[in-house]
Amino acid sequence: MLVVKKFGGSSVADKERIFNVAERVREEYHAGNEVVVVLSAMGKTTNELIEQARNINPRASRRELDMLLTCGEQMSVALMAMALQSMGVPAISLNAWQVAMHTSSAYGNARLKKIDTERIQAELESGKVVVITGFQGINKYDDYTTLGRGGSDTTAVALAAVLHADACEIYTDVEGVYTADPRIVPNARKLEEITYDEMLEMASLGAKVLHNRSVELAKKYGVQLVVCSSLTRAPGTVVKEVVNVEKMLVSGVAVDKNVSRIAVMGLNDVPGTAFKLFNLIYQKKINVDLIVQSVGYSGDKKDIAFTVAADRVEEVVSLLEQNKERLQFSSVEVSSDVAKISLVGSGIMSTPGMASKMFEALYDAGINTRMISTSEIKISVLVDERYAEKAMLAVHDKFELGD
Amino acid sequence: MLVVKKFGGSSVADKERIFNVAERVREEYHAGNEVVVVLSAMGKTTNELIEQARNINPRASRRELDMLLTCGEQMSVALMAMALQSMGVPAISLNAWQVAMHTSSAYGNARLKKIDTERIQAELESGKVVVITGFQGINKYDDYTTLGRGGSDTTAVALAAVLHADACEIYTDVEGVYTADPRIVPNARKLEEITYDEMLEMASLGAKVLHNRSVELAKKYGVQLVVCSSLTRAPGTVVKEVVNVEKMLVSGVAVDKNVSRIAVMGLNDVPGTAFKLFNLIYQKKINVDLIVQSVGYSGDKKDIAFTVAADRVEEVVSLLEQNKERLQFSSVEVSSDVAKISLVGSGIMSTPGMASKMFEALYDAGINTRMISTSEIKISVLVDERYAEKAMLAVHDKFELGD
Repeated sequence: MLVVKKFGGSSVADKERIFNVAERVREEYHAGNEVVVVLSAMGKTTNELIEQARNINPRASRRELDMLLTCGEQMSVALMAMALQSMGVPAISLNAWQVAMHTSSAYGNARLKKIDTERIQAELESGKVVVITGFQGINKYDDYTTLGRGGSDTTAVALAAVLHADACEIYTDVEGVYTADPRIVPNARKLEEITYDEMLEMASLGAKVLHNRSVELAKKYGVQLVVCSSLTRAPGTVVKEVVNVEKMLVSGVAVDKNVSRIAVMGLNDVPGTAFKLFNLIYQKKINVDLIVQSVGYSGDKKDIAFTVAADRVEEVVSLLEQNKERLQFSSVEVSSDVAKISLVGSGIMSTPGMASKMFEALYDAGINTRMISTSEIKISVLVDERYAEKAMLAVHDKFELGD
Repeated sequence: MLVVKKFGGSSVADKERIFNVAERVREEYHAGNEVVVVLSAMGKTTNELIEQARNINPRASRRELDMLLTCGEQMSVALMAMALQSMGVPAISLNAWQVAMHTSSAYGNARLKKIDTERIQAELESGKVVVITGFQGINKYDDYTTLGRGGSDTTAVALAAVLHADACEIYTDVEGVYTADPRIVPNARKLEEITYDEMLEMASLGAKVLHNRSVELAKKYGVQLVVCSSLTRAPGTVVKEVVNVEKMLVSGVAVDKNVSRIAVMGLNDVPGTAFKLFNLIYQKKINVDLIVQSVGYSGDKKDIAFTVAADRVEEVVSLLEQNKERLQFSSVEVSSDVAKISLVGSGIMSTPGMASKMFEALYDAGINTRMISTSEIKISVLVDERYAEKAMLAVHDKFELGD
């Protein structure tokens, strides 16, 4: 059996943790399996390197920043190989160049294009554990690139795909994916299984156990993921294509406070208005989430409200103001003190009454809904930020998701 | 004009020093020259990385240690490129893989075999300053290697050779090569010029401005070196094939305290004795320096004394004891409290009376000589360590080397 095991930066932050990871790898190896280990940079190394770069040149080129940052994972993998060797486990570290992890040219946010497996296969066949740098690649110029946020998870999934690994284990500082954030909902329950799509919704809604890019890639290549803890031996959460929906209609409740509502008032109620508005925003690569258009507005005007990530609000507002003549609206309203509460589950669309049950929970808790949006596997509502926790608890309880 | 500039770790230890180096590079670039910069790892980075490795695995494989250590220079060059960019100088950093700096496979002590110039030439032609990692290479397995002590100087000289550079400047924390160590001999004078051979003798005798490997390489390829200060603008010392010997018969006086004398007593006075003794030591890759055989020993026995680096003494002694039967000697005597004083200069052999003048200086100072050895360009004497400084001053004065 070939297993890919990915450990994040906090799992290799110091000597003790490095040996904790090495011990788990040793067990897997001694069970007779082939093991590929993917590592991030140790602890806060990446942030420290970014800080060093900023100190030298706040507008350093991304090319040079990637040249600097890729040292972080290279140090991790070398030290891990040394730790494994000290335990009698033959091991070798490889960086993005040595594997040949080809990416697009976009420094700082590159996409994996092709991974050569020759060297990895050869090292595995010679009986070694292969320890590979996550997060990094090389482009067609023979320059280092980095994959951006969630990069190491993506590396692990991509390696599992090209190596046809039997398992891809993502080790984190939590024990798996929960029905809600355990810090907010004390009786939140760890899920045994979740589908790729549910995981995508959960991740985009603030339950950031896995980055969406890695889940999308896993879905595309059918790589079954296990999210588990690097500290405990508890079984993790399996992320796969189909789970037993009978067992669990709803996977969890997620909250996203990093969201703002923008309402564009008094738009002309003619064809093309929405297109013009959102195309403008799209061109700035700003992601729009919930969209609601006013219903039954008097006369020939309409309002359109939508949500964007809180840190993009100013940009959107100034963009709207700059295009006020073209878009022809009367005013823009911004609400930043809002939170999005989402119920996620593969059974949502196929089960009548889920939405009304969610609204009932919120009504019972005396919480007003500011916007509503539904999809195949998700119902999202926007509430005042101060009610976020209360809303989560109410919905979590209503659907009896807790222990 | 193409200039290779090499800066050591202390020259790039912090932000201020990085910008100090960047400023000098900027001046060279704005004078219309093509510039290749070779850097070591910042400050104590290499030692810190070695310490980290030791902490994880004191017997880590050299392969993994090199994988770890090569991050040191990669961080330096990335930060230097950023500093240059912030000053408006187009710059790009390249590591051993990106240049393609091919070496032998010997991790930790690799030898440069071939340097590709394509990428460097292309970057220079596009108007960039090229900042290259010193000390490191890649071997035929596509693994990182390091060049061992003096590695970055060697990288700079090798680059100057393959790029046919017009100058190769080695920046250090001293202003050049002196007639004697200025900390011991206050009126020591900075040399304008010195030959490769003199430099080799000076370096091996403790005046460690340049490592011998880099000087040997410079001699082989006729690369003219300039040793100068990274902190002041004083003109440095030029190292080249031929200097004006009329001007300067003697280049300087060097001292080496890191030396021990081993005397092997009562050897059989038959052919092959010396061969057997030194072949044994050679096979352990231990360098032997001065060798003196007793003259006029009574009977059929002889004594042989020689010097080795102080840290290899124990090894040599135990080697001798293990082979006592084969070598047939009566006893071994070790003196560690000795120092080697050497007079170095291209004019020594061709000028009568140099040796007797040196011995006269020592005699006048009341210092006994324990061993004597001469070569084309060097006279070395072994004295008691407590007289080392006194001996240096006496010889330096006698030859009027000071200001």
